[in-house]
Amino acid sequence: MAESTRLVDLVHERIAGFVTDRASILTSVSEELDPLVDISRRFLSGGKRYRALFCYWGWQAASGEPDGFDPFADDEDSRPSTAVVGAASALEVFHAAALVHDDIIDNSDTRRGSPSAHRLFQSLHRSSGWAGDGADFGRSTAILHGDLLLGWSDELLDDALDELADRAAARRARGEFNRMRTEVTAGQYLDILEERAWPTRDESEFRERAENVIVYKSAKYSVLAPLVIGAAMAGGTDAQLSALRSFGLPLGIAFQLRDDLLGVFGDEQVTGKPSGDDLREGKRTMLIALAREQLPTGARRLLDELLGDPDLDDEQIRLLQSTIRESGAVDEVEALIARNVVRAITALTDAPLTRTARRELTALAETVTRRAA
Amino acid sequence: MAESTRLVDLVHERIAGFVTDRASILTSVSEELDPLVDISRRFLSGGKRYRALFCYWGWQAASGEPDGFDPFADDEDSRPSTAVVGAASALEVFHAAALVHDDIIDNSDTRRGSPSAHRLFQSLHRSSGWAGDGADFGRSTAILHGDLLLGWSDELLDDALDELADRAAARRARGEFNRMRTEVTAGQYLDILEERAWPTRDESEFRERAENVIVYKSAKYSVLAPLVIGAAMAGGTDAQLSALRSFGLPLGIAFQLRDDLLGVFGDEQVTGKPSGDDLREGKRTMLIALAREQLPTGARRLLDELLGDPDLDDEQIRLLQSTIRESGAVDEVEALIARNVVRAITALTDAPLTRTARRELTALAETVTRRAA
Repeated sequence: MAESTRLVDLVHERIAGFVTDRASILTSVSEELDPLVDISRRFLSGGKRYRALFCYWGWQAASGEPDGFDPFADDEDSRPSTAVVGAASALEVFHAAALVHDDIIDNSDTRRGSPSAHRLFQSLHRSSGWAGDGADFGRSTAILHGDLLLGWSDELLDDALDELADRAAARRARGEFNRMRTEVTAGQYLDILEERAWPTRDESEFRERAENVIVYKSAKYSVLAPLVIGAAMAGGTDAQLSALRSFGLPLGIAFQLRDDLLGVFGDEQVTGKPSGDDLREGKRTMLIALAREQLPTGARRLLDELLGDPDLDDEQIRLLQSTIRESGAVDEVEALIARNVVRAITALTDAPLTRTARRELTALAETVTRRAA
Repeated sequence: MAESTRLVDLVHERIAGFVTDRASILTSVSEELDPLVDISRRFLSGGKRYRALFCYWGWQAASGEPDGFDPFADDEDSRPSTAVVGAASALEVFHAAALVHDDIIDNSDTRRGSPSAHRLFQSLHRSSGWAGDGADFGRSTAILHGDLLLGWSDELLDDALDELADRAAARRARGEFNRMRTEVTAGQYLDILEERAWPTRDESEFRERAENVIVYKSAKYSVLAPLVIGAAMAGGTDAQLSALRSFGLPLGIAFQLRDDLLGVFGDEQVTGKPSGDDLREGKRTMLIALAREQLPTGARRLLDELLGDPDLDDEQIRLLQSTIRESGAVDEVEALIARNVVRAITALTDAPLTRTARRELTALAETVTRRAA
């Protein structure tokens, strides 16, 4: 765990240093860009850094270093760990960019307990006494802000991969990153499509469609890809990468199923998002698919009617929560989470990965699927 | 010119091949992503390809190939030209991404005479009979579509630079691309900021502020950076890159000033955007800054009042057009364009660049600043 803590600190430092460096370009253009720098700094300093951790432990798992080796030791040998810190930072900056755009798409006011980026820009508009519509300004500038962060994530990754002597490893890691970038965008598209297209689809497909969204929007993106990128950087063998995929996919599915539960039942104090947010957004998650399968026609119709209404009041949220809970869907999702975590951890047994990494990944599997449960 | 035509064809082929390749990833995720592929293909097939041309001629200018050398000859020597076609394609895909997001920001219904991307997604929503708000779906999916294209532009550039044997040249070109990406986002931010912040700024700054937007949103991005990226790929000397900057900056300014005139007076048949579009959007361009300086108080107040009203009717557009024209601002902008074109072309005289490139860049300078005049 000390290693994980150290990694998170190093990622934080790397990102902060990078932003300071890039801020000098922005400042040279105009001092009017200071808010863009401030909001970037603010957004990039938070988060649980799960993707960075998976990237690091993927790297460690395949690095073949003897147990007890200190990857952050201040000597020549620490070079590969500098590279993996850079890649982990790139993943975090990419994720921040995705969240900025995601919050515009979902019309979310909050992120990590603070205002979302477009709301921060909107506040800037108001406090500056500028003309025109503030909400519009907030959305527009947040689109640009996300674009800026996307570019920056890419620069961080390039810098990291440039440090690797093993060029084949660098190319492989870059390929995995690129594929992840295309796939997660596809997954996000399917996610928002599902909110609108579900009434025109066959009932029998709902569960499968929800699972496809989970796999691409989250499981591969949040867990599998970071692990594989890290392992590829370490020059991992096909067997090692394959073992990490067998661990990462079910764990990623469990991770998102937990997220779906938190999106409906989570405590605002813990999730940083208002309770029931996913209900107002109308997310068609696995939880909803399972609930619909179990509910009698009348209750199902009520669920369909209320889901996605942005103006749901607290009482309606509570009604939906209890409808979903009473359908038995929550228990089913909990069982699915448990089954997928077991599948993930089992994949680590006898996997050709370092002992330390197997131990830490097992612990991490518990952490990311039990959070705020 | 034959070389330019050939380049445009090769860029078109490269992009089409790339999209077909990436489409296979999307298709493997879900057939629901077909519209994303179709709209990508549609969007990436159009445009005047100015950025690709500047990249190519920047490369040619510094490549030191003898006159009469055929860079597209089908042999070993054609390798560097394959790389520059890739980089030129990357710039075009990046530009398409920027336009997709730009049209959301500006709430533009059309692009290149066809519906803008978010409007295409909105039509898809309507024709599919999906639930919820179609405009909202259009905007959300177009944000994701732009993100997808941003990632793809990056992949195209990486592939291109990987082909270069000269690693220092590749790194330099990548550095120029990265800086361009940050600077153009900064320029776009300042552009939309100006639409809202101008009433709170000092009148005396308007001209300078408009010029800063021109430089970063357009001059560096559309002309200077493509030239320098091309030249850097060819291993150009500092003197060569400096000469291209001295040509590119004034030409880029002239290019944007022409665009500003077209945004107010352009013919829809030619620009592919409704006439007077910039007036409805409230763009605070150099043209507007100069008009305001000359107009009497009453007319200036009327201009300020109408500018940025999305519901301006044809008569109001005509009134604004004649107000601006009568202020003398159009003549002033035309003079500025002419002066900057002369400055650009003069910078080519005796520049340490190939004769062919100097000739073609001179011709290109006329083309991009005289279009639809």
